[in-house]
Amino acid sequence: MTHKDSTIPLSDSETYLKNVTVDNVILGYHDKELKVLLQKPLPFDKWTVTGGYIKSNESVEESAERIAFSRTGLKNIFLQQFQFFGSAQRGLDIVQYHELYNQSTQTKIPKDHWLFDRFISLGFYSLTEFSMVKVQKSSINQDCQWWSINELPPMMFDHKLIIEAALKALRLHMVHFPIGYELLPEKFTLPEIQNLYETILGKTLDNRNFTKKLMKNGILIKLKETKKIGAHRSPWLYKFDKERYDDYLSTGVDLIF
Amino acid sequence: MTHKDSTIPLSDSETYLKNVTVDNVILGYHDKELKVLLQKPLPFDKWTVTGGYIKSNESVEESAERIAFSRTGLKNIFLQQFQFFGSAQRGLDIVQYHELYNQSTQTKIPKDHWLFDRFISLGFYSLTEFSMVKVQKSSINQDCQWWSINELPPMMFDHKLIIEAALKALRLHMVHFPIGYELLPEKFTLPEIQNLYETILGKTLDNRNFTKKLMKNGILIKLKETKKIGAHRSPWLYKFDKERYDDYLSTGVDLIF
Repeated sequence: MTHKDSTIPLSDSETYLKNVTVDNVILGYHDKELKVLLQKPLPFDKWTVTGGYIKSNESVEESAERIAFSRTGLKNIFLQQFQFFGSAQRGLDIVQYHELYNQSTQTKIPKDHWLFDRFISLGFYSLTEFSMVKVQKSSINQDCQWWSINELPPMMFDHKLIIEAALKALRLHMVHFPIGYELLPEKFTLPEIQNLYETILGKTLDNRNFTKKLMKNGILIKLKETKKIGAHRSPWLYKFDKERYDDYLSTGVDLIF
Repeated sequence: MTHKDSTIPLSDSETYLKNVTVDNVILGYHDKELKVLLQKPLPFDKWTVTGGYIKSNESVEESAERIAFSRTGLKNIFLQQFQFFGSAQRGLDIVQYHELYNQSTQTKIPKDHWLFDRFISLGFYSLTEFSMVKVQKSSINQDCQWWSINELPPMMFDHKLIIEAALKALRLHMVHFPIGYELLPEKFTLPEIQNLYETILGKTLDNRNFTKKLMKNGILIKLKETKKIGAHRSPWLYKFDKERYDDYLSTGVDLIF
C-alpha cells in the first residue's frame, strides 16, 4: 500500500489533521445524464464518494484538489464547498467500518489509532468534463467508476445524503452562477445546454425564456457554424464568453428560468 | 476558569474534537441596523465572532447551539451552515494567538497541547431576536457586545472575512427562503419588513413588487389592526403565517424582489 493513493494512511510519514475529512461529489455529464464518480473500498460491497484526509500543511481546498487529481487525473478542477456533515453518529459508523476492515484484511489498524476516532466531513462538489476524466482507483479500492445520479448503488455511511445535499446545493447555485463550462463540449447547440440544465434541475424549461435569459446576460456567443444533425436539422453552435462567465462566477447573475 | 463558559478548555475533563472549531455569526436587527454579536478575548484588543470547540459526543449543530446559548441565553436558535474555513494560514494565526495568551496571562498552555494545533472553522450564522438576547461574556472574554455590521471593530484571525461570507450567504439565502421571523417583532408593518430586507441586501427595493411577492406567496397574514405612527399615519399590521413560513424553509420559495 503506497501512501500516495491510499485513503487509509496507516504507515504514513505525513501528518494529517484529526477528526476531519474532505468528501468530494465529482459530477460529470454524459449521454444526457448526470453522473457521479464513486469508489468501492475494500472489502465492502458498498460505495462512497471520493474523499480523503487533510495534510497538516494543506488548505482544505488543496486537499480536495490533490484527492480529485488522484482519482481523475485532472488539475485545477472546479470545486465548490456546499455543506459540512458533523452528526455524532458519523463517528460510530466509521469505527464500525475500520473494525470490519481490520477483521477482513491483513492490515490491522491499532485500536488507539486516530482513524478510530470520529470524523466531520467537509463537503465539496466538482463539475468535470466527463471525457477528460481518467478514472483511477486507489489500492484500497476494489473499484472506482461513474454512476448515473438516478441509479446509485448501495452507499456507505451517510454518503447518499451527501450526494443529495450536493445536488440540492448545485440547483441553488445554478440560479445565481453560470454552470456548464466544464460539463459541455467547447461548442454546443442551444438544445444541448438546455438539456444540461433540465437534467440537473429535473424539470422541463420553457425554451424561449431559457434562450432569452442566457443571451441577455451575454454568457453565450453565437458562432458562425452549425451542427449537422440530419438533412433538415443544422442548429447554430454556441460557446461560452469565458471572460463574462468568470465575472459572473464571482459577482453572481440572475439565471432563474 | 470554569469549563462551562471557557473557550480555552485547558483543565477540562471533557474530550473535544481536534483541529476543528465552530464559529457562529450571531445577527440581530435593531434600530434599522443589522448587528453582529462579537467577543473580545483576553488579553487582546481585537474581536472575534462567537465560537468554541466541539465535544466528542456532540453533533456540530449541538455544539453551535450550546455555544450560542452560553452567549445569548437563547435555546432553539435559528442556525444556518454557510461555509467552512480551512486555509493552512489559520493554524499559524492560532499558534500566535496562544503564544501571546501564554505571554500575557498566568494561564500557561503547554506547547504540546492540542490547542497549539491548526483549526478548521465550521461557519454558521444565526438570526436572533435582538431584544431577547441576554449577552453573557465568558470568563476569558473582556467584553461581548453587539456591533453594527457597518462599523466593525478590529477583528482577529480571518473573522472579518467570516462575517463578510456570512452576509453574502444570507443574501443568497433570502432569495430562496423566508427570513424575518426571528428578526422582526411578532406584528409589523410592510415598511418595517421591507426595511429589514433593504438593510440586509444593502439596496432599495420597489415597494409594490416587494409587497406583491410576499402576499402572492402567502407568507404574510394581514391583521385587522393598524399601527399608530402619527395623526395621519396608521399602516396595517401583518404577521407571518408560521406554518407556511416553515414549509418554505424546507422547500424554498422564489423571493427575488
